[in-house]
Amino acid sequence: MPAATTTELERLLDDDVPHGDLTTEALGIGGEAGVMDFFARDPMVLALAEDAAAILRLCGCEVEQLASSGERLAAGAPILRAHGAASGLLRGWKVAQTLIEIWSGVATATREIVEAARAVSPGIAIACTRKNTPGTKRFAVAAVKAGGAVMHRLGLSETILVFGEHRAFLDEPLAATVARLRSAAPEKKLITEVAAIDTALAAAEAGFDVLQLEKFTPPDVATLIQRLAATPHHPVIAVAGGVNASNAAAYAQAGAQVLVTSSPYMAKPRDVQVKIRRDTK
Amino acid sequence: MPAATTTELERLLDDDVPHGDLTTEALGIGGEAGVMDFFARDPMVLALAEDAAAILRLCGCEVEQLASSGERLAAGAPILRAHGAASGLLRGWKVAQTLIEIWSGVATATREIVEAARAVSPGIAIACTRKNTPGTKRFAVAAVKAGGAVMHRLGLSETILVFGEHRAFLDEPLAATVARLRSAAPEKKLITEVAAIDTALAAAEAGFDVLQLEKFTPPDVATLIQRLAATPHHPVIAVAGGVNASNAAAYAQAGAQVLVTSSPYMAKPRDVQVKIRRDTK
Amino acid sequence: MPAATTTELERLLDDDVPHGDLTTEALGIGGEAGVMDFFARDPMVLALAEDAAAILRLCGCEVEQLASSGERLAAGAPILRAHGAASGLLRGWKVAQTLIEIWSGVATATREIVEAARAVSPGIAIACTRKNTPGTKRFAVAAVKAGGAVMHRLGLSETILVFGEHRAFLDEPLAATVARLRSAAPEKKLITEVAAIDTALAAAEAGFDVLQLEKFTPPDVATLIQRLAATPHHPVIAVAGGVNASNAAAYAQAGAQVLVTSSPYMAKPRDVQVKIRRDTK
Amino acid sequence: MPAATTTELERLLDDDVPHGDLTTEALGIGGEAGVMDFFARDPMVLALAEDAAAILRLCGCEVEQLASSGERLAAGAPILRAHGAASGLLRGWKVAQTLIEIWSGVATATREIVEAARAVSPGIAIACTRKNTPGTKRFAVAAVKAGGAVMHRLGLSETILVFGEHRAFLDEPLAATVARLRSAAPEKKLITEVAAIDTALAAAEAGFDVLQLEKFTPPDVATLIQRLAATPHHPVIAVAGGVNASNAAAYAQAGAQVLVTSSPYMAKPRDVQVKIRRDTK
Amino acid sequence: MPAATTTELERLLDDDVPHGDLTTEALGIGGEAGVMDFFARDPMVLALAEDAAAILRLCGCEVEQLASSGERLAAGAPILRAHGAASGLLRGWKVAQTLIEIWSGVATATREIVEAARAVSPGIAIACTRKNTPGTKRFAVAAVKAGGAVMHRLGLSETILVFGEHRAFLDEPLAATVARLRSAAPEKKLITEVAAIDTALAAAEAGFDVLQLEKFTPPDVATLIQRLAATPHHPVIAVAGGVNASNAAAYAQAGAQVLVTSSPYMAKPRDVQVKIRRDTK
Amino acid sequence: MPAATTTELERLLDDDVPHGDLTTEALGIGGEAGVMDFFARDPMVLALAEDAAAILRLCGCEVEQLASSGERLAAGAPILRAHGAASGLLRGWKVAQTLIEIWSGVATATREIVEAARAVSPGIAIACTRKNTPGTKRFAVAAVKAGGAVMHRLGLSETILVFGEHRAFLDEPLAATVARLRSAAPEKKLITEVAAIDTALAAAEAGFDVLQLEKFTPPDVATLIQRLAATPHHPVIAVAGGVNASNAAAYAQAGAQVLVTSSPYMAKPRDVQVKIRRDTK
Repeated sequence: MPAATTTELERLLDDDVPHGDLTTEALGIGGEAGVMDFFARDPMVLALAEDAAAILRLCGCEVEQLASSGERLAAGAPILRAHGAASGLLRGWKVAQTLIEIWSGVATATREIVEAARAVSPGIAIACTRKNTPGTKRFAVAAVKAGGAVMHRLGLSETILVFGEHRAFLDEPLAATVARLRSAAPEKKLITEVAAIDTALAAAEAGFDVLQLEKFTPPDVATLIQRLAATPHHPVIAVAGGVNASNAAAYAQAGAQVLVTSSPYMAKPRDVQVKIRRDTK
Repeated sequence: MPAATTTELERLLDDDVPHGDLTTEALGIGGEAGVMDFFARDPMVLALAEDAAAILRLCGCEVEQLASSGERLAAGAPILRAHGAASGLLRGWKVAQTLIEIWSGVATATREIVEAARAVSPGIAIACTRKNTPGTKRFAVAAVKAGGAVMHRLGLSETILVFGEHRAFLDEPLAATVARLRSAAPEKKLITEVAAIDTALAAAEAGFDVLQLEKFTPPDVATLIQRLAATPHHPVIAVAGGVNASNAAAYAQAGAQVLVTSSPYMAKPRDVQVKIRRDTK
Repeated sequence: MPAATTTELERLLDDDVPHGDLTTEALGIGGEAGVMDFFARDPMVLALAEDAAAILRLCGCEVEQLASSGERLAAGAPILRAHGAASGLLRGWKVAQTLIEIWSGVATATREIVEAARAVSPGIAIACTRKNTPGTKRFAVAAVKAGGAVMHRLGLSETILVFGEHRAFLDEPLAATVARLRSAAPEKKLITEVAAIDTALAAAEAGFDVLQLEKFTPPDVATLIQRLAATPHHPVIAVAGGVNASNAAAYAQAGAQVLVTSSPYMAKPRDVQVKIRRDTK
Repeated sequence: MPAATTTELERLLDDDVPHGDLTTEALGIGGEAGVMDFFARDPMVLALAEDAAAILRLCGCEVEQLASSGERLAAGAPILRAHGAASGLLRGWKVAQTLIEIWSGVATATREIVEAARAVSPGIAIACTRKNTPGTKRFAVAAVKAGGAVMHRLGLSETILVFGEHRAFLDEPLAATVARLRSAAPEKKLITEVAAIDTALAAAEAGFDVLQLEKFTPPDVATLIQRLAATPHHPVIAVAGGVNASNAAAYAQAGAQVLVTSSPYMAKPRDVQVKIRRDTK
Repeated sequence: MPAATTTELERLLDDDVPHGDLTTEALGIGGEAGVMDFFARDPMVLALAEDAAAILRLCGCEVEQLASSGERLAAGAPILRAHGAASGLLRGWKVAQTLIEIWSGVATATREIVEAARAVSPGIAIACTRKNTPGTKRFAVAAVKAGGAVMHRLGLSETILVFGEHRAFLDEPLAATVARLRSAAPEKKLITEVAAIDTALAAAEAGFDVLQLEKFTPPDVATLIQRLAATPHHPVIAVAGGVNASNAAAYAQAGAQVLVTSSPYMAKPRDVQVKIRRDTK
Repeated sequence: MPAATTTELERLLDDDVPHGDLTTEALGIGGEAGVMDFFARDPMVLALAEDAAAILRLCGCEVEQLASSGERLAAGAPILRAHGAASGLLRGWKVAQTLIEIWSGVATATREIVEAARAVSPGIAIACTRKNTPGTKRFAVAAVKAGGAVMHRLGLSETILVFGEHRAFLDEPLAATVARLRSAAPEKKLITEVAAIDTALAAAEAGFDVLQLEKFTPPDVATLIQRLAATPHHPVIAVAGGVNASNAAAYAQAGAQVLVTSSPYMAKPRDVQVKIRRDTK
C-alpha cells in the first residue's frame, strides 16, 4: 500500500505537471510505447517505492514492483519497471524518482543508525523526531519505518513530553506535576527532557517514565544510569540532541534504551537510475 | 506575504497538532501569557519567515516580524517575537521553527553558490532544479528566491527542455526537431541537455537557444565556448550536474551563463534558537 | 481558539448554504440589522462554542462570546450574542446552533461520567473511544475534552493496543509478544484487551502496562485487582464495554483507574435557544 | 455506489489511521492473509454498507457485498466479507464498522417512524430535518433515504421556508409576502412554520403551499384540517417538533401529510459484529 | 459577502500565480506603493465585485468597494480602488478583473432578459439552468442572482424534473407517476418537460405542477394556455429551449410565468478598465 | 488521460449531484439498465471527451470512447457510449455533456483561428491568453491544446512579460530593464507589450525577444516588420488585442509569427446530442 492517499499523490503530480508536459507535447511523441526502469544506482534502503509506483499508475502506466520499501538494495538492483505511453512515462518519471531518492536517503540513514546501535545493544529502539520538512510527515513517517526506526512522536496531540519551555509556566514541585499528568494521561508514558544529571535524577524521583537526555555525552549517560541503579527509579533512558550514526554505538554502549534523532532527515538522497526506451515488442 | 496559502499553513499545523497539544492541556498552563523569541543561532540567509509568522498568527499570537526572508542574518540576530497564550505559542513553536530552519538552510546554500559565482561573473544566473522534496514546491521556490537564485523550471508544463529520454522516441535530424519546436513554442527558449562537446556543437547548430551541459568539467565548458565562438551560433550556456558552492566559481570563470543546481536542497538546516518565557508585563 | 480550521468551518457552512439563503433573498430582508442570542435552554456543559462563534464571524457577524467550552451552564445562561445583517445571522444560525447542541450533549454526558466516577475516586481518568461518527473526530475530541475526559486513542497510529483480533494472527507466548512490543515501542504503554480474569492475570504477568477489561462486572474488576495485588505486576486497570454514568461509580469503587467509554457519543443533544430580533439601536 | 466520494472516504480513513497502524506494525503481522466478516448483531435497516465496502477496498481488501443499504436485516444476517492482508483488514475495520453502526441506527429509527405512520396512512411522507451532526450531511442523507424517508430540506439554498425569525424583519401583510415569494420562486412550494391554529389558517389564506405545524398535538392537527376543509385553501399539512416513532401514527391519523422529524439522528447505533480470522485457504 | 469561500478564492489566485509573479520579481518593483482602479468600460450589471475585492485583500491590498454586485453601472463608473504594494496589485489584478468581466457579462445578459420580460409581464420569473461551465457553479449562481434571475435548479438533488429520458425507463400511466412522486416529494413542485401541446395537456391532467415547454413558439405557448384555461388544471407554465433577450417579451406576452434559459452563460464578458499607477501620496 | 484529477472530477459531479438524484430516486428507476450515446450534433473539434468519460466511470458506467479530444467531428459523429444503471447514466449525463459542449466550443473556435492563419502562414503559432473563466484553467488549457493552439502563458509564475503597468513603477532606460531581466531570467524569452510602432522599435532595440503588439492593424504590423528588417533586431512578432478568426489571415499575411487571442473563450458551446434508452440486451 502507498503511504499517501490518491488525493495526495495526484497533488504531487499536479505540482509538477499542472497543465501537461509541454516538451513531450511539442515533440509529438506522447503516443509512442515505452518502457521505463528504475534501478538503485548506489546501495540503499528503499523507501516510498509503492507510492512511486502508484504515481506512475496514475499516469496510465502498468507497473511491476520489483522491490519493496524497507528492503536493502545493492547497487544496480531493480526497483520497478513501467510500461506505457511515452506521455505517461515522461509525466511521472521525475516525481516518482525524486520521491524514492529523497526518502530512501532518509531510510538509509535511519538504517545506518539502527544497525550501529543494535550491533551493540540488540533491543535498542531508534526514534526519529518530528523535525521533518513541514508538509511531508506522511512520507517522513514511511521512510523512518522503512529504515527500521519508529517515530518519537507524531505531533503534539498524542504524547506527554515536558520541556523546560513548559516548566517556565509552572510553579510547583516536579512530583506534583507528575501526579497531575499521571491522572490526566494514565494510558501514556510521561516523558521529560532533562539537560543535566541532577535534573535527570530529580525527574526520575518525581516519577517520569522516560527521561530524554538532551545533549548528554555517552559517559554522562553511563554515569546517570549507574546512579539511577542505586535508586528505586528505573525510567527508560532516551538520548537526544546530536545523535547520529557515528555516535549511536557509543550511546548504546552507555546503556541508552532509545536513541532520539533528527539526523536522518538531513541525509543525502540516494540516486535512482532511470532508463527509458521505446517498447519494441 | 507568506508563500503559502492559509489553507496550506493550516494543513502544516494540523499535521503536527491535529487534536490539541496534549502536554500543555494536561499541565493546565494553556492560559498563561507568554513571549516567544526566534533568533538566528548561526549566520543564515533567512527564508519563510513570513510563513512562520503567519502560522503563529493562526495560533492566536501577535507577531512582530523582525527580519525578512532574503536577509542575511548574523548569529544572534532576532527573527520574530510572538506574544500570546502559552497554548498558542507552544502549538505553533516547532512548525514555525522547523519551517524557517530547513528552508533557511536551502536559502543559505543557494546564496553561497550565487556569491561564489558572481564574484567571478557578476551577471551569471543560478537556477535551482525541480528536484525538491515532492509536496514542498511552494516552500522550495520561496527559499530559492530568498537565496538569490531562480527556478530552472517549475515543472513540465512551462518549459521546453529536450532530454535524451525524449530523443529515444524521435527519428529525425535535430534541426527538424528544432524547427518543429520553434513553431510549437515561439515564445519559449528551446533548451536541450547535452553530455559531450560534439553533441553540444550539433545542438547549437541545430538551433537550440540554451545548451544544458550535463556533467561537463569547467575546462570542457571553456573549450565548448571557444569552439562555439568560431560559429554563428551563440546559445546560452548552462551547466548542470554536480554544480555546488565549491565549483561554482570555476564554472563561472569558464564562461557559463547559468548554473543549474539541486545541491541547495541537500543543505543542512540552519539553527533557529527559540526562547519562551512568561509574559510578566 | 476554535477546534476546527477555517477551511473546515467554511465547509460546514457550505454544506448547509452552498448557494445562498433562498428564503432570505426572496424575502429581500438580508440587509436589515439584527441581533441573535444563543442561550442554554437546559443545564449543559458547553462545547464547541468557539467554533460556533467562528462560523458566525465567517458570516460577517460580530460575536461576543459569553461562555467558554468546558463551562457548566445553568438553564437560561447566555452563550453568545451576534450582531450583523439578517443575511449573516440567518445564514450561520442553524449550523452554529446544531454544532453546539450536539457536541454539548456529548460534553455533558462525558462530564456526568467524570463526576460520578470522581466522587468515588478523585484521581480516576475517563477516556472516550474513537467510535465517534466518522468524519467528526475534530469535534468529538474537543467535546470530550470539554467534558473533562481524555481520548483513549486518537486512532491507530499512536497507541499500542492488542486485541484478540491481533492475536488471531500470532503464534507465540504472550511474553514474547510483549518483549517484541517493548522493543518496538519503548516510549508507549503497552495495552491489551482482556475478557476474563485469567487472561487478565496472564497479560499482567506477560508484562502489559495497561489491561483493558472488556465487559467485566465491577465485582470482577475488584476480584482481579485483589488477585493482582498478590503478584509483582501492577498494570493500570482500565474497564471498557458498557461503561456509562450509571455504573461509573461502581467501577471506580471497584478500583479501576481508567474508564473507557463510547457512551457519551450517544447522548441526546442539549437544546440551545436562539432568539433573533431586529437591531433597533 | 457509495454516497461519499473517494476523497471523502480517504479522509475518514486518514482521520483514524494517518500514519499507519502502530500495533499491527509492531506485532509484525501485517502480511498475514485474513478474512473479516460483518454481521448484523441486532435487527437493523442497513445503511452506508457500500461506503464501508469502499473503505475496505481502499485498504487493499477484496470485498463481497452481502447486503445493500436500505435492506432490513435480521439479527445475525451477513453484511459483507473482506479478504486481504491483516494490515488492510485491521486498518479499515473500525471505520467501516462504525460508519455502518451509526448510520444504520439512523436508518432503522427512520424506518420505524415510516412504518408507524404508513400503517395508518400509506401515502404519508416522512421528512428528516437538516439537524444532522455538522460535517456529516452526505451520510445523513444516505441514511435517511435508506430508512425510507426524504430530506425536508438539504440546506438553505433550495427551499422557501419562512420562520418567525424571518417575519421579525418584515412589516407587511402575509399575503404580500406570499405574492413576492411566488414571483421570486415560482417553481418552489412556499412553506411556512406556524405555531397555532389561527396563524395556520391565516397562512393558508395568505397562500402558502405547505404549513409546517410546530409542536401541534394530534388533536390540534385534526382540528386545523377540519377547519381548513371549510375554506378554499388546501395546503399540505406537515407537522414538526417532537415527532417520533411513538406519536407518528397519531399524527398520521390526524391527517398530516408530512411528518418532519430530527429524532432519527438521536438513534442509538446498531451493533455490527465483526469477526476476523486467518485465511487458511 | 463574497460568494466564494476563502479556500476557493485562494485557489483561483493559486491557479494564476502558483509561485510568485516572475516579471515583477525580476524587475524588482514589488515593494513600490501603487493604486489600482477598476472601472466599467461599458455599461454593465456588476457581478462578483465582492469576490474580486476579497481576492485583492488576499494579496495584501486595502480595497474600497465602490459599487456592489447587482448594481447597474454606466460606462466609466468606478467599481473598486485598491492600495498596496505593486507586488500585491499586480498579483491580483487579472484574476480579479477577469472574474468581474466574465460574470458581469452573465449578469448583464440575465438582466436584459429579465427586463425584456418584465416590461410585458411584471411578475414573470427568469430562471437560469445549470448548464454553466462545470466547476463554476458558485460564481454562476451569484451572477444569475446579480442579474435578477433565479436558478431553475441547483443540481439533481433538490428538484423533481421529469424528462423523456426518465420516462424511457417507466411503463405506467402518467397519473401513476405523478401519484408516486407526490407521495415521495410532498414538499416539492412536480415539474416535467413536454415538447408538444398534447403531451403538455396530458401532463397537466396527470397533475404536474409545472410544465416546462421545450422549444415551444410563443403562439404555441398561448394556444396551450388557452386550452388549459378550459380545464381544471392550472400548472405553472415555464418555457425553455432557445429563450433569450430577443424573444423573452414574446413569451411573456404569450402568458409564460417562468422563462428558463441558458443563454446568459454565453454572454460576452463586459470590459473592466484597470488603471495602475504609483501611489505618490 | 483526462486533463483533470479524480479529485477534481468528483468535485464537478458533487457540485451537480451532492446528495443523489432526487427525480430518479423518487421514480424508482435507478436500477434499470440503460445505454447512453453522445453524438456531435454540429461539426466540432472535440475537447474534454476523456474527462467526460472519466466522469461517467465515476458514476459506475462502462464507457466506450469513440472519438478523442482534438479530433474534428462531423455532425452526427459518435463521441462515446456508456452502459450502466439508469442511476449512473442520469447522474453523470449533464455534467459530462456540458463539459464537452463548452470546451469543444473553445476548441472549435481555436481551430478556426489556427486554420485561418496557417492557410496563409503554415508555421504561425496561435497562443491563447489566461483570460479563461477563473477556476477552469485545467479545462481551458486542454481545450486550447485540442484546438491546436498553445497557451500564451499559464500564469504569472513562468514568463517574463512587461506591461505598461510594470513600467509605471520603473525609472530607467529600457535597455537597462532588459539587461536586468536577461540576467534574472536567462532561460526565458523577454516579452513586452507595445502599443505603437515607435515604442515597438525602441523595445526591439532595447533587446526584447518578443514584441506583443497591442491592437495593431495588419498594415501596422507589416510596416513594423518592414522597419525592423532594416535593423539588426529580429524579435518574434506577436499580435494581440482583438485577434479572431476573421482577421487571423490578415495578421498572418502581415508577417506576425504569433497570434495571441482570448476570443475562443467566448465561443458558443457546440451541441452534443445525448440519447438514453433502456438496455434491452
